[in-house]
Amino acid sequence: MLRIPFEELKAEFTRVLFEKGAPSDVAELAGRLFAENSRDGVYSHGLNRFPTIVKLIDEGRIRPAATPRTVLSRGGFQRWDGNLGLGNVTATRAMARAVELSRRYGIGCVAVRNTNHWLRGGTYGWQAAEAGCVGLCWTNAIPRMPAWGGREPRLGNNPLVVAVPRAEGPVVLDMALSQFSFGKMEEYRMAGKMLPFPGGYDEAGEPTSDPAVVERTKTALPVGFWKGSGLAMVLDLAAALLSEGRGSLDFDEREGEFGVSQVFLAIDADSLVGREVRERVVTRILNHVHASTPVTEGGRVYYPGERTLLTRRENLEKGVPVNEEVWKIVQAM
Amino acid sequence: MLRIPFEELKAEFTRVLFEKGAPSDVAELAGRLFAENSRDGVYSHGLNRFPTIVKLIDEGRIRPAATPRTVLSRGGFQRWDGNLGLGNVTATRAMARAVELSRRYGIGCVAVRNTNHWLRGGTYGWQAAEAGCVGLCWTNAIPRMPAWGGREPRLGNNPLVVAVPRAEGPVVLDMALSQFSFGKMEEYRMAGKMLPFPGGYDEAGEPTSDPAVVERTKTALPVGFWKGSGLAMVLDLAAALLSEGRGSLDFDEREGEFGVSQVFLAIDADSLVGREVRERVVTRILNHVHASTPVTEGGRVYYPGERTLLTRRENLEKGVPVNEEVWKIVQAM
Repeated sequence: MLRIPFEELKAEFTRVLFEKGAPSDVAELAGRLFAENSRDGVYSHGLNRFPTIVKLIDEGRIRPAATPRTVLSRGGFQRWDGNLGLGNVTATRAMARAVELSRRYGIGCVAVRNTNHWLRGGTYGWQAAEAGCVGLCWTNAIPRMPAWGGREPRLGNNPLVVAVPRAEGPVVLDMALSQFSFGKMEEYRMAGKMLPFPGGYDEAGEPTSDPAVVERTKTALPVGFWKGSGLAMVLDLAAALLSEGRGSLDFDEREGEFGVSQVFLAIDADSLVGREVRERVVTRILNHVHASTPVTEGGRVYYPGERTLLTRRENLEKGVPVNEEVWKIVQAM
Repeated sequence: MLRIPFEELKAEFTRVLFEKGAPSDVAELAGRLFAENSRDGVYSHGLNRFPTIVKLIDEGRIRPAATPRTVLSRGGFQRWDGNLGLGNVTATRAMARAVELSRRYGIGCVAVRNTNHWLRGGTYGWQAAEAGCVGLCWTNAIPRMPAWGGREPRLGNNPLVVAVPRAEGPVVLDMALSQFSFGKMEEYRMAGKMLPFPGGYDEAGEPTSDPAVVERTKTALPVGFWKGSGLAMVLDLAAALLSEGRGSLDFDEREGEFGVSQVFLAIDADSLVGREVRERVVTRILNHVHASTPVTEGGRVYYPGERTLLTRRENLEKGVPVNEEVWKIVQAM
């Protein structure tokens, strides 16, 4: 397995984005974010996604030089227009603004319309938590799940992120609302395996654990069946409403997913909660969860984000694993 | 089936609570909330729960005369101590305050500690949405789900509520994080049926669809398996942290669930989003979902809260269905 030092990965992404027209601060930030996703083990949203993003820039779908515009500002709430800039850059700036608003108002919220795929949602959870905030954010997405009781894809997997700060490393939940991502289902199919639980629907509209069937019908199953269906619906509604932006129904497979709506929320735990209370409350709960008897011998219960830290440490030390083919493509750009 | 006029139900609850020591405004409000839960078809949190709540008042566990205290106030954020008052009354007041804060700051948040079971979470979603706000709230709860990979119950079903305002009736998701409630599993068992999907764990720690087994092991399955487990964990952490209150680990079957932690969030859509935009965005999305081809012939896709409105209309017109036995108990109180 080829491993590349984090800084080299970051520099390469930055170089390409700068050459594609991103201002140097945007290229720096986006380059770091792509490199961090691979560093944290989320390869699908790091190096492996980079060529797709560059293609979208070349097609004029993503505008790397665009700057988000503040459309409305009232107390702790702002509405931005992302102007179809790089989604991960705009999301980082929106969460940074939500954090700033929370310093002043206790709680801050930025709703963004006309932005692009934020890549890895967890990024903005880590960001909020590392700034000492409880962070909450979500995005809408292209419809690939039927609403419960319906046949056609009508709901995005609308990832939801919730993050809690902690000195030893934050707790960050990054949860798409489909039970399995299509990337994960592809892995199972290629390994010749069935999914451990139903992951989507077959042609008759019945739940199935066969990944190949779900890839064919393009109808993934929501987490918790009717429950995730309802949650995906209200998150789409709230994002489109608060940003006065587009809903999942505005994205389709032909046009792709552009100009999505997102909400970023931060609550300033750093100033609202005593640091001692903070560590005690959070550590007690995590210790209690860790003390569970594992179901499988030698197993272990993790909190959300815990394994990310382990992967991060390993990849910073040994270098970040890269797919050689994709790495060559990026180097040749 | 015995049906009682809504006003009669409400008056009876109010009378009992007043006689149990609640000030008249508290008795009025709580009486209305209990009656509304039955009116909306949530019988388990209306009449059928009323005797349990009265018992807890008699035992001194719930203090009907207690008033919540504002512990900290900073911009759009407040922290309250519920002083172990009636949970539904304190939750209503906390959401009302979050709405008030949102009028001033665009967004408002009240974190409450030492409060009690809020009964039906949807109540506070309807409340926020009817005030023209996007509402978001959650509570922690007694642990009855293992963390993913663990054996013992370590997580509450920590219900999450998300509400979106709309002229024709709001969209309100009220979602406990267990796939099925224990009440629902009891219904299946008594009907001699298996659950349609796994609802908990058997003695070996394997998922099972047998409701009797889950009732015995008292270990329910989270929505979306590992995903709902993670979500329950971060919601507990955030509630305990922001309220400087108790976590799910502080409640057990012997002591019961007292002094829980809750978070109430409101965003003032009424003033932040044009009314016309609001109706257009929300109605378009709901129409699109409604237009799904149903999986079962004659079926229909509903949005969260839609069926509540149908039940409400019927029960207001024909009277609210009551369990005769429980109704007699309450009348005799």
